[in-house]
Amino acid sequence: MAQLSPAMRALVQPHLVDIEPYDPKFTPTSINLSANENTYPLPAGVRDAIDAALASTPLNRYPDPLSGELRAELARWHGLEPEQVCVGNGGDELLFNVMLAFGGRGRALVTCPPDFSEYAFFASLVETETLSVARDPESFAPRVDDLVRAAQTANLVIVTSPNNPTGDLFPLDAVERLCDACQGIVLVDEAYGEFADEGTSAVPLLARHGNLVVLKTLSKAFGAAGIRCGYVLAAPDVIEVFSAVRQIYSVNVLTQAAALAAVRARDVYAPVVAQIRAERERLRVALSTLLARTAPEPLGRVWPSQGNFLLVRVPEAGNVRERLRDEYSILVRDFSYAPGLSNCLRITVGTPEENDAVLAALTELLEEDAS
Amino acid sequence: MAQLSPAMRALVQPHLVDIEPYDPKFTPTSINLSANENTYPLPAGVRDAIDAALASTPLNRYPDPLSGELRAELARWHGLEPEQVCVGNGGDELLFNVMLAFGGRGRALVTCPPDFSEYAFFASLVETETLSVARDPESFAPRVDDLVRAAQTANLVIVTSPNNPTGDLFPLDAVERLCDACQGIVLVDEAYGEFADEGTSAVPLLARHGNLVVLKTLSKAFGAAGIRCGYVLAAPDVIEVFSAVRQIYSVNVLTQAAALAAVRARDVYAPVVAQIRAERERLRVALSTLLARTAPEPLGRVWPSQGNFLLVRVPEAGNVRERLRDEYSILVRDFSYAPGLSNCLRITVGTPEENDAVLAALTELLEEDAS
Repeated sequence: MAQLSPAMRALVQPHLVDIEPYDPKFTPTSINLSANENTYPLPAGVRDAIDAALASTPLNRYPDPLSGELRAELARWHGLEPEQVCVGNGGDELLFNVMLAFGGRGRALVTCPPDFSEYAFFASLVETETLSVARDPESFAPRVDDLVRAAQTANLVIVTSPNNPTGDLFPLDAVERLCDACQGIVLVDEAYGEFADEGTSAVPLLARHGNLVVLKTLSKAFGAAGIRCGYVLAAPDVIEVFSAVRQIYSVNVLTQAAALAAVRARDVYAPVVAQIRAERERLRVALSTLLARTAPEPLGRVWPSQGNFLLVRVPEAGNVRERLRDEYSILVRDFSYAPGLSNCLRITVGTPEENDAVLAALTELLEEDAS
Repeated sequence: MAQLSPAMRALVQPHLVDIEPYDPKFTPTSINLSANENTYPLPAGVRDAIDAALASTPLNRYPDPLSGELRAELARWHGLEPEQVCVGNGGDELLFNVMLAFGGRGRALVTCPPDFSEYAFFASLVETETLSVARDPESFAPRVDDLVRAAQTANLVIVTSPNNPTGDLFPLDAVERLCDACQGIVLVDEAYGEFADEGTSAVPLLARHGNLVVLKTLSKAFGAAGIRCGYVLAAPDVIEVFSAVRQIYSVNVLTQAAALAAVRARDVYAPVVAQIRAERERLRVALSTLLARTAPEPLGRVWPSQGNFLLVRVPEAGNVRERLRDEYSILVRDFSYAPGLSNCLRITVGTPEENDAVLAALTELLEEDAS
């Protein structure tokens, strides 16, 4: 495992001594279904609108710190006031900021793993203790009673809905119980929210819970992971905390311009989202059938998902992932290293062609293993 | 003074209780010489190259975490290896990261104020103690012996060259003394370095000092404050620390594309930089003459500058700044609140027309006061 040089280990803060340098190794593949990106082309007209916005944006002035126009448009969309919105340099910046503001040494974050690994990483950067209330190992259902109990003494709770990588929704009544139980902040990460069924977002709960934060992003449904635009929705006084601790120019003028064009065009993304949802179901059924034939439970399993990805258990997942990459030039994510996710791959729902390719490849690999 | 709500003061980390929410009040003016931006048009061809790069950049994939192509181009420019470069979301992100990695509770940063206010702010976010070794109150020369003494027990030293807002260079032999004296990291912020005389950069010292970090940015000479692109140059093991603590996707694809186009075109910026340097001298001489006539020392003073700005002392600077804004629609920065900078304005060197306008306005205001 890589580590910092001895000289640097002596200089960094003690809690960062074992931090790993970024490992840039990356094998380019023809089909990349590893990062839950939206692999569809932008809807007609949207890219033109974005390019026009970019070309007319002056570059020499510092950005509007609060992304005023974009903030107002996001507020309009969600039926909130601009003071209830803070835009960040991707969801990452806002997740780090919530740890910096509300976490810290001697303070605790409650999470619900398996979940997004950056929660625990960002918490560790600012010495926040992470209290994991693990999901049911088979269904991945959150243990709500245990979470509520842990929330009572926590400074921060993060749940994800739909959850990455398990794909399930976090029940809204459980969000409310957490908001009631926790003296601190309850953040619901809805990065994949646009792919979920109607009526499953926690945004309407903002009206009743002053300690609720909903995180959203343009990285997934909007197909704009590259521009780094995330935002939080919360009560105005919570938003003021984000705006106080963040770097004031963190959202650059190009991202603000592109995001505004994309959000204004939000209605035209609906067909893409509908297609991804339909492909998700097609892929899930096909994988279930394949696994029933080649690797019945408990060896093989595919979990239902409300995101743009599926979690799939296959025999020797690490080997399958490598062969997909090396023999088929298809990249998926292996979660075998994560507690509770042995032999689990996460496969982003791609275009029909990409999904056909991953299905054909998995069929070959699993039938070969089964024979 | 604005503060967080009582509910939020109870929830944030104790050292952040008195942090001020961002104050969005801002009066638009015709001429903005307040933020040391480059107010010149981009050189012919550069904007076209940037727009072409932006339009051909896919938006749906996460950015290259290490900004590979840009990093290689920056390394080529500075005669270094790519492993000696880390690109960040503006200099701000890298300044915060250096505090997060090498500062922290019970650890000390040495600064040399008056200097860039964000050093102390970022230090405070992660509970780093700031030890200020103030400059000479008249000449603003740094007290090098005192700095070297303080550096001996510090974890981090930051000096700025040219310094913002005083405009002077930090001597290279003093940088070397600090590197030798300090067990920790010595960061030289060269945000304004391209406006300074040849041979004044600390970059060549990297070959001799493993604890030296040089910070640079595209926000000033490159006229690209809006895209948020800064970078540090340092030994590979120091760069690994930056890459370990930073948010891996902090530099978005649009910024990477625009910055690469700008840096590739770096030679064509030379005439703009030369013109800003010439205008700086013209403005300095004209202001000196004006002040000699209307507000002789110690009331009035203009300091020499190696940046794209001038620090000017005038009687009743706060009032002058307000009248410039309200009567002439010209915005400059009032530093009167800062220790050692009473009645000091910082005026960005603008285009010839902007400089003529600010000179004419100041002539009217100061002659009126003097009569």
